[in-house]
Amino acid sequence: MRWLHEKDIENIAIGATVLGTGGGGDPYIGKMMALSAIKKFGPVQVVSVDELNENDWVLPASGMGSPSVLVEKIPSFEQLSAPLQAYEKACGKKTDVVMPIEVGGVNSLIPVAVAAMNRIPILDGDAMGRAFPEAQMVTFHLDGLKPKIVTIGDEQGNTVTIEPIDGFWSEKLARNITISMGGSSIVCDYGITGEQAQKSVIPGTLTLAQEIGALLSQTRTASTHPIEQMLRLLKGYRLFKGKATHIERGIQGGFTRGIAQFAGTDDFSQQACTLHFQNEHLLAELNGKPIAMTPDLIAVLDEETGMPITTEGLKYGARVVVVAFPAHEKWRSPIGIETAGPHYFQYPYDYQPLESLVKEHANK
Amino acid sequence: MRWLHEKDIENIAIGATVLGTGGGGDPYIGKMMALSAIKKFGPVQVVSVDELNENDWVLPASGMGSPSVLVEKIPSFEQLSAPLQAYEKACGKKTDVVMPIEVGGVNSLIPVAVAAMNRIPILDGDAMGRAFPEAQMVTFHLDGLKPKIVTIGDEQGNTVTIEPIDGFWSEKLARNITISMGGSSIVCDYGITGEQAQKSVIPGTLTLAQEIGALLSQTRTASTHPIEQMLRLLKGYRLFKGKATHIERGIQGGFTRGIAQFAGTDDFSQQACTLHFQNEHLLAELNGKPIAMTPDLIAVLDEETGMPITTEGLKYGARVVVVAFPAHEKWRSPIGIETAGPHYFQYPYDYQPLESLVKEHANK
Repeated sequence: MRWLHEKDIENIAIGATVLGTGGGGDPYIGKMMALSAIKKFGPVQVVSVDELNENDWVLPASGMGSPSVLVEKIPSFEQLSAPLQAYEKACGKKTDVVMPIEVGGVNSLIPVAVAAMNRIPILDGDAMGRAFPEAQMVTFHLDGLKPKIVTIGDEQGNTVTIEPIDGFWSEKLARNITISMGGSSIVCDYGITGEQAQKSVIPGTLTLAQEIGALLSQTRTASTHPIEQMLRLLKGYRLFKGKATHIERGIQGGFTRGIAQFAGTDDFSQQACTLHFQNEHLLAELNGKPIAMTPDLIAVLDEETGMPITTEGLKYGARVVVVAFPAHEKWRSPIGIETAGPHYFQYPYDYQPLESLVKEHANK
Repeated sequence: MRWLHEKDIENIAIGATVLGTGGGGDPYIGKMMALSAIKKFGPVQVVSVDELNENDWVLPASGMGSPSVLVEKIPSFEQLSAPLQAYEKACGKKTDVVMPIEVGGVNSLIPVAVAAMNRIPILDGDAMGRAFPEAQMVTFHLDGLKPKIVTIGDEQGNTVTIEPIDGFWSEKLARNITISMGGSSIVCDYGITGEQAQKSVIPGTLTLAQEIGALLSQTRTASTHPIEQMLRLLKGYRLFKGKATHIERGIQGGFTRGIAQFAGTDDFSQQACTLHFQNEHLLAELNGKPIAMTPDLIAVLDEETGMPITTEGLKYGARVVVVAFPAHEKWRSPIGIETAGPHYFQYPYDYQPLESLVKEHANK
C-alpha cells in the first residue's frame, strides 16, 4: 500500500509543473494546501487504476480559473471540501476515491488536499495526461462521457451545482460562474465508476510527476544534465535554448492568454522562438514556423536547473530551454485533435505530430 | 375556495403590467404559459396569505433576464418546472404553495403556470408589491431573510443550484448564469415557511392585479375614464400626458436599460417628460426635475384605453399618460430605499416620496 507523505509533495509539484506549464496556476499554492492537509489529516493512500473496484465512485477535484487570480485567492479547507460535499448531495453517492482531473501545477495537488481532508485515497492517474485549460478537454469527453453534475465553490463560501446538458454547457456555465466568483474556484465534475475510470483515465501520471520531480531535484552529478534525463523518461525533444525578450499576458474570458518571445543562445543563436499560451503553452514557433503544437506538451525549463517555469512565472530575461513531449495517443485521435488541437484555440495550423515537425525541421 | 381559470388570466396579465411596466418581460408570454398550463392541468387554487399554515412550504418561481431576450426564448413546461424540482431536491421539502416573487408582467403568470403543472395552489401575494429588476429587491431581503438556495433552469435543459452566502451573491451569480444561458431563465429562490410568508409577503397583489385588469378591460361607459378609476383604486397620480419623441434602449449586464422622452400634449403642452428605466421605469423627470422615483411605481398607459405599455413595447409616437403610485410602506423604510431607491440605480437624486414631489410641483 502506497501513501503520500509531506516529503512527496514537493516532487509532485515540480513534476506536475513540467506536465502542465500553465499548470492550473502556481504549484506552490497547491503544494501549500496539500502539505497543510496532510499535516492536519495524515498521509493519503495512493490507489492505482488497476486496483479500483468496478463499483468504486471516483470523483475528480480541481481548481478552475486564471492562474493570475488564483494566486490572490487561496481557498480555505472548508472551501476546498464544499464542492465534494455538494457533489455527494447531488448524486447521492459517497466518494470512494478522489482523482486529479489534470496532472499539472495546482491541480495535481488540490485533489491530494481534498483526499487528505476527507480521508479518502487518491487515484494515480488523471483525465488529461498533462494539463489543458478547458474543462471539456478530458479523456472522459473523448470517450463520450458527459459531466452530468458539476459543483463549484469559491473562497467566500458560495456553492453552485450545475446539471448541464453536455460538456460544452458545463464548460461555459462553470467558466462564467468562476468569473463571477472573482476568477477562481474549486470544481468537482465527471464523477465516474471504477469501471469507467479503468477505460478513460490516463494511468500512472501522479507517479510520473513524482518521478520527474525526483529527477529534477536530485543532487547533481557530473553525468547527464537532468533535462536530458527527463527527455529520455518522457520521450521528448529539446526544441530551443534562449532568453525571454518579450512577454504579453492578459486576462481574457477567465484565462491568462498571451505570447512569449525568445532570442536564441548557444546552438540556437540567430534563431527565435515564440510560444503562444492560454494558461498552458499551446503552440511553439521556431523562426516563424510551428515546431510543436497542442495537444502535444510544450514546457519551458530553467536552462541551469531544468526546473519548469510556469506561463505565469516566466519573466523577461529568463534563460530557458524549450522542450516538448508527445501527447498520449488518446489526444492524437480525430476527436482528441478536434477537442484540444490548434484550431480549437484559433491558431492557424492543422495539427502535426511533434515527431514530424521536429524531423521536418532537422531536414532543412 | 377561489380558483384561477383560463378566463382570469387576461385580467391578471393586464393588471400585472401596470404594477410592473418592465413587467419581467412581455406579459403575453406569461399569459400563454399560464393559459396552456391551466388548459392542460386544470384551474389553480388561490390561497390568501392569511390561509397559510405556519409550516407550509412556500416557493417563489419567476423568470429572470432581459425582457428583450425572453421574447425569443419561450420555456417549455419541462423547463418551467425543473427549477422547482431542483429546489425540492436541494432543500429536501415538497412545495405546498407556489408564489410570485413579483407581481409584474410575465412574473405574475409564470408561477401560475408552475402551480398548475404541479397541481399546487398559488399564493395571493408577492415579495415586491410591484415589479423590480433585481433579485435582492424583495421584502424577504428587507426582513433579513437570505436566499439559501437558488435554482435556475434554461430552455436548453441546463439546471443550476446556487447556495449563495447572501442576497447580493445570489443576484450576482444568478444574473451571470442567466446571461451565460443566453439572457433569460426560470428561477426559484427564497423558499419560506407559511409563518415567514405571513411576515414578509405583500398580501393580495394577485387579486389587485386582477382587479386592475378587470377595470381596464370593462366595457367603457360615458362615466369616469378607466385611468381615473385606477388612480383612485391605487391612490395614484397622473403625472403627464404626451407623446413619445425619443427612445433609447440597450441590453446592459442582463438588463434592458434606457430612457424614453415625451413631448406634452393637451394640459401638458410646452412641457416635457423623461423616463429612465432598467426593465422597470425607475425615474420620471418633468421639465428636467424629478417627479417620481423608485421605489414608487411609475407606469405608462395608453392615453385612449388606459392599457399599460411595457418599457419593451413603448414605441416612437405613442400617445400616453404617465402615472405613478406610492410604494408599499416596506419600501419607504431606510433599508427599502437603500435596496431599491434612486442611488442604487445610480440616479443622482435622494429619494423623495411621490406625494411630496407632486405637491412641490403643484405649488410652483
